[in-house]
Amino acid sequence: MKSLQLTMLTDFYELTMAYGYYKSCRKDEMVCFDLFFRDNPDNGGYSIFAGLESIIQHIENFRFVDEDIEYLRNRDMFSDDFLEYLRNLRFTGDVESFLEGSVMFPYEPIITVKAPIIEAQLLETYLLQVVNHQSLIATKASRIKQSAKHRLVLEMGARRAHGASSSVLGARAASIGGIDATSNVLADQLYGVKALGTMAHSWVQLFDTEYEAFKTYAEIYPTNCTLLVDTYDTLKSGIPNAIKVIKELLVPKGVNHYSIRIDSGDLTYLTKKARKMLDDAGLENCHIVVSNALDEYLIKDLLNQGAPIDIFGVGERLITAKSDPVFGAVYKLAAISKNGTIQPTIKISENVDKITTPHYKNVYRIVDENGKFEADLITLHDEVIDTSKPLTIFDPKHPWKSKTFDTYELVPMLQPIFRNGKLVYDQPELDEIITYAKDQKEKLWDEVKRFEYPHKYYVDLSKPLYDLKQKMIQSAIKKG
Amino acid sequence: MKSLQLTMLTDFYELTMAYGYYKSCRKDEMVCFDLFFRDNPDNGGYSIFAGLESIIQHIENFRFVDEDIEYLRNRDMFSDDFLEYLRNLRFTGDVESFLEGSVMFPYEPIITVKAPIIEAQLLETYLLQVVNHQSLIATKASRIKQSAKHRLVLEMGARRAHGASSSVLGARAASIGGIDATSNVLADQLYGVKALGTMAHSWVQLFDTEYEAFKTYAEIYPTNCTLLVDTYDTLKSGIPNAIKVIKELLVPKGVNHYSIRIDSGDLTYLTKKARKMLDDAGLENCHIVVSNALDEYLIKDLLNQGAPIDIFGVGERLITAKSDPVFGAVYKLAAISKNGTIQPTIKISENVDKITTPHYKNVYRIVDENGKFEADLITLHDEVIDTSKPLTIFDPKHPWKSKTFDTYELVPMLQPIFRNGKLVYDQPELDEIITYAKDQKEKLWDEVKRFEYPHKYYVDLSKPLYDLKQKMIQSAIKKG
Repeated sequence: MKSLQLTMLTDFYELTMAYGYYKSCRKDEMVCFDLFFRDNPDNGGYSIFAGLESIIQHIENFRFVDEDIEYLRNRDMFSDDFLEYLRNLRFTGDVESFLEGSVMFPYEPIITVKAPIIEAQLLETYLLQVVNHQSLIATKASRIKQSAKHRLVLEMGARRAHGASSSVLGARAASIGGIDATSNVLADQLYGVKALGTMAHSWVQLFDTEYEAFKTYAEIYPTNCTLLVDTYDTLKSGIPNAIKVIKELLVPKGVNHYSIRIDSGDLTYLTKKARKMLDDAGLENCHIVVSNALDEYLIKDLLNQGAPIDIFGVGERLITAKSDPVFGAVYKLAAISKNGTIQPTIKISENVDKITTPHYKNVYRIVDENGKFEADLITLHDEVIDTSKPLTIFDPKHPWKSKTFDTYELVPMLQPIFRNGKLVYDQPELDEIITYAKDQKEKLWDEVKRFEYPHKYYVDLSKPLYDLKQKMIQSAIKKG
Repeated sequence: MKSLQLTMLTDFYELTMAYGYYKSCRKDEMVCFDLFFRDNPDNGGYSIFAGLESIIQHIENFRFVDEDIEYLRNRDMFSDDFLEYLRNLRFTGDVESFLEGSVMFPYEPIITVKAPIIEAQLLETYLLQVVNHQSLIATKASRIKQSAKHRLVLEMGARRAHGASSSVLGARAASIGGIDATSNVLADQLYGVKALGTMAHSWVQLFDTEYEAFKTYAEIYPTNCTLLVDTYDTLKSGIPNAIKVIKELLVPKGVNHYSIRIDSGDLTYLTKKARKMLDDAGLENCHIVVSNALDEYLIKDLLNQGAPIDIFGVGERLITAKSDPVFGAVYKLAAISKNGTIQPTIKISENVDKITTPHYKNVYRIVDENGKFEADLITLHDEVIDTSKPLTIFDPKHPWKSKTFDTYELVPMLQPIFRNGKLVYDQPELDEIITYAKDQKEKLWDEVKRFEYPHKYYVDLSKPLYDLKQKMIQSAIKKG
């Protein structure tokens, strides 16, 4: 998975267009594409960017190999010279991107690609797939972790994931979103997401008695002992057997980390009963792990009801982002070279939200004196902002709404990743990304992180960019 | 992707349990697991099985390679002799399975695995992932194709899929469900799902005028010409330009297959207007393709409103199965060898639906004299049914409900796939699977295929199996 060459994972129209650009002698025209999204999942106030590592890998491996060329030749649509051109095609452009773990907001460019048209076009499908999938899961994970507060959250959705990469890269994205560990062994082996696990119901069933099943497990794994107590009867059999085994085998050895797991039933009722039974038996430090179709809403409810849960296992609703499984990032043409210079382009739509923001751009985050994120500002790519002066920003849809900052810092959000096709970015370890993501979320106001009607974070246009957009809309309308 | 070795794509607890079985000297015990599901997605009346090809591949490639062993050694939990054992482990058991494209129903075993416990356990996560993902998409695709009636449906969700395998294997599963083609080039290259495509908005934007963009495209692809008409203004600019180009370039060449595509706006309104404009221009055979967040519900509505659509492009809502993205298949222990013979086992639950059906089993489909599917019958594995006699089946939850068949055929649904670890099944081509799936759906009563409150297809237990289950429940309750 890590080294997979996925150049052919593309929509066929990228290839028909590529051949069209080639045939109409436009293949070397430079263009700029923006990758951005329009809505935070689950009506949330923010999203978490993930996927840059996969994108870097994809661009570095980008090439059509012999069997790809043969497949395309057999389609009987493309000329031999074009196929030879494809065989030698490598990415030679510039990519700028948000860093993984960044909080991000609708309508700002998360990635910009400046490259000859065919190269930029052929990246579209894969870049969107990566960002849409991994940011979706990172964002969902962040919401779930937020609902669990200081408690551990484990990702255990492999069996309900939409295929191998959904599970493995999903587990990685979930860890960027704040999940503490995964059940997925391959995600650990390939990406270093800590993998954990203990037992399933089949373990308990295989032994003649539940007691024997627990005892055998505790003997083999005295320091990694989570006993699954709901195979037969949680309160009458599972918990009493767990208490017996812990007291007989673990306590005498001085082990003081152990847990029970409940995977069915009314989790508030059962965990309250379980906590009391464990405490009465002197096992105050026995952790209670729960799982069973959990997400941020259920976790919030369980905790509001006072369920004494220490660890949440989250499966299908995280790995598929069940409540809102589509992250809608798009990839839109923003500028085209004409006579050697980059010229802005715009896509008009009757739906105002679908009008694109023209030109090659940059994004800055406005950070206040306490380090809190106040707003993001989209500018022209080469625009220079004098931070010694107060900064006034405008709401792009409602320009009479403006806000002025006197003391602030401007953090550039788009970092150079590729320059002329060469990787210029030093990739961090997953741990660093996780720390960065945590820091990003701490710098967001709680109001933006609220699940219900979150405060809308400002993403504004600089004055020159705003004026350019208005001018181009006016001129397009006149032309129409 | 096709040759990927994914033995490590497993939940960590499969490995802790495997080591536990090994350490407690139970590694060679034969067990039987059933893979089954509890609910059809979207409250539907049936599901479509997909994933067997991936499963066969997985089992044939099943082995821990050196780097896997090293990863596990570094986890510091497993003994060296166990790691050596794992290194040499291959699958040696029996697998029986429904064939891809079969219609299937809740609570019947779709796959049975009879193997030494460690082997059976280590397959769990991957088998579930494959069935859950691919059957989910095949089922969703089947519903969407059903809503579109005789019209073509194209899968174009790659950019919104949950990773590479989600898109590629999803496109394959969608074709089993009845989708006519995909946008996904890799799905065609690897699995032979026909890939198609024409142009995106960026093509139109790159040219100075929409007319020039259409004209250039039609010159290059006169026989594969679908013009995307909604970049600027569908009715005022897109369709008039398309008509002009078709009449100037395609009609004179004698081309009579061409289309326009509308990807935004009110699709009923726009397609009605478009149809009239095209017909008025003498282009009665110009097809109208639409796309934009479609699924079976929207397609049904559009057609009910009389939208003159010829082809549907379906993206995110198919490839993520947005309205119900979790297919809940589970893998449950059904039998254990004791003293050399296979003994049934049961998992009791307070939730009646979660009580498993014990023992190694078989599934037969009862087909009436007209070839229609009447019910499925779950039996003991070695049970022989005398088809010369009338057959009475019982509802397993409501045994007073019974039904007798006088003339019927019994079709065995579980086919031998592996015997003693050896593949004994001759894999069909995708085309054959698609034809088989189509035939399966034709043999289902329309009442079962209805979206709203479909008729519940009977899945019943044979008398001996029913009696065994009751006896085991009674005995478990007494023990409790």
